[in-house]
Amino acid sequence: MEVLRWEKNCLLILDQSELPQNTHFIECTHYRQVAQAIQEMKVRGAPALGAAAAFGLALSAFNFTGNEGSTFERFLLEAAQTLRATRPTAVNLNWAVEKMLKVSHKLSGKTLAQIREGLLEAAHQILMEQREQDEQISSFGAVLIPSPARVLTYCNTGALATAGLGTALGVIFKAHQQGKEIHVYVPETRPVLQGARLTVWELKQRGVPFTLITDNTAGSLFAQGKIDLVIVGADRIVANGDFANKIGTYNLAVLAAYHRRPFYVAAPLSTFDPNLKKGEDIPVEIRNPDEVRKIKGSLITYENCPVFNPSFDITPHELVSGYITERGIMKPPFNDALFSRDLAL
Amino acid sequence: MEVLRWEKNCLLILDQSELPQNTHFIECTHYRQVAQAIQEMKVRGAPALGAAAAFGLALSAFNFTGNEGSTFERFLLEAAQTLRATRPTAVNLNWAVEKMLKVSHKLSGKTLAQIREGLLEAAHQILMEQREQDEQISSFGAVLIPSPARVLTYCNTGALATAGLGTALGVIFKAHQQGKEIHVYVPETRPVLQGARLTVWELKQRGVPFTLITDNTAGSLFAQGKIDLVIVGADRIVANGDFANKIGTYNLAVLAAYHRRPFYVAAPLSTFDPNLKKGEDIPVEIRNPDEVRKIKGSLITYENCPVFNPSFDITPHELVSGYITERGIMKPPFNDALFSRDLAL
Repeated sequence: MEVLRWEKNCLLILDQSELPQNTHFIECTHYRQVAQAIQEMKVRGAPALGAAAAFGLALSAFNFTGNEGSTFERFLLEAAQTLRATRPTAVNLNWAVEKMLKVSHKLSGKTLAQIREGLLEAAHQILMEQREQDEQISSFGAVLIPSPARVLTYCNTGALATAGLGTALGVIFKAHQQGKEIHVYVPETRPVLQGARLTVWELKQRGVPFTLITDNTAGSLFAQGKIDLVIVGADRIVANGDFANKIGTYNLAVLAAYHRRPFYVAAPLSTFDPNLKKGEDIPVEIRNPDEVRKIKGSLITYENCPVFNPSFDITPHELVSGYITERGIMKPPFNDALFSRDLAL
Repeated sequence: MEVLRWEKNCLLILDQSELPQNTHFIECTHYRQVAQAIQEMKVRGAPALGAAAAFGLALSAFNFTGNEGSTFERFLLEAAQTLRATRPTAVNLNWAVEKMLKVSHKLSGKTLAQIREGLLEAAHQILMEQREQDEQISSFGAVLIPSPARVLTYCNTGALATAGLGTALGVIFKAHQQGKEIHVYVPETRPVLQGARLTVWELKQRGVPFTLITDNTAGSLFAQGKIDLVIVGADRIVANGDFANKIGTYNLAVLAAYHRRPFYVAAPLSTFDPNLKKGEDIPVEIRNPDEVRKIKGSLITYENCPVFNPSFDITPHELVSGYITERGIMKPPFNDALFSRDLAL
């Protein structure tokens, strides 16, 4: 299942909000449609957001005709700004936008056709590199999975989140491919239900045994000794190792620590943000209360009920047993070279 | 809002599964309808289940005509068995059934009309005593609430759960009535959403400020120092203080301990089960997977997705700061006299 596909000057985005009931692609012919799809979580998952933003910027070069009363540079910066503003927490989005702006800078002076080709190639390159990184993350991470293993994961970090094999879920897939005996517990992940809708669907397709639970069932499983380890993805990992991930991740980290079970984070280096020192510096996106008030359009409470709906929480580095990246498994303090812009970009 | 009402040989049960959208009463003219309403969680909350079962047994005396080819004693035992089997975890149900059987025993030899009257009076008595107990629990508990206080509660433990003021929520109501400045955080309580549907509704009616959150948002609030204390109800508290309550309670107890916040349990003595020594002895009801798979009739995952849906989890006594009962605030080891059948029945 391809998450993003470029076809005839058009970006096709798999509408993940409709999964698993409907498989439907949104045709984006303008970068603003890409921004909207990101904002509405039609495409989600930190690495996939990076790739979507990169293609969004490539698309902007196709939208620019020279008749806008503006230079392409200004048009591109506007597109970059629009795409960046969609979701503030996942740093991969920002990383991909920066990378594309750099590529565009190198193309300055070229014809519009050459710029279009160059940006499109760069977007494809980001997607391809991501797939390779997923493979490396999965291979490094699989070493950490015993057999048999009862693994708790969270949200969706599979092919749908990265457009590759996945990060945390990629590790699970790889260990399963290696013949390890794995059972995955999948919390539904309220409010947008990525666990119930996406993760169980990916696990089923790959034949990995699993059980869906409500988010609040995790503690009970730990108490009964039914969880051997936790592995999650990340939306932003800052310099000291603190990280933002889907709301509820922190609860699982505390439960894992309390029950003395390892808790791993799997993410590519593009998820690291060395510019922020501590987790509390990460901007946490607060989303529409209706995501909580309504499920599939049906009210589950009364209209206008006061709601607090942060999309992410922050887990401190002390609770993390290891960070699984495409360069290997690490612990802070991270090597500065890891974050060098030349390497990471 | 009355949860249970006896009218002309009929038990009216407020259908809580329809709240807050619809206010609709189920008319039960046969005890089997009461059993069904309990099983389907139309009426829920440990103390309210006790009262509903008591009225169910009173109703059975009205159902018995003498033409069943059986004695009333046998008919009543059958009704008791049916009602007991509906929900295995909440001990109040069993407690009320035992109490009614005792009353019936004392009435043996009386006319059917006298038995009917006696059992009905006993059921009304249970309800009335419960209301008094709620008042006492609330008054004792309110002492523990500072002002201002940000309180995390869970599931629904208000008027809808007890047919009185409530237990944990009763404490909050009482503290609010006393003029304390309280803000309540209400987790939605998946899968049946008692928090989102019932607790916010009760808080709104009583003018207590609150915020609805998804269950997985609790950790983040603790981490940000936004929770001063936790107060929950219970479905069964055993001899050593371990207790069963709505799935997810244990997660909150671990979070409270990790963040060094008090965690209180409010419940009447009818919720205590001195016959079981430890939490692991409590039978935990596993409910229909469709409660997780579907919300308001809509599938949130794929059909037949494997699900684990325990209705309760067990919290060990070490995580409890105090037990608020109608006799005061206690900690284990509990006084044996507390559990004497004469006192408790």
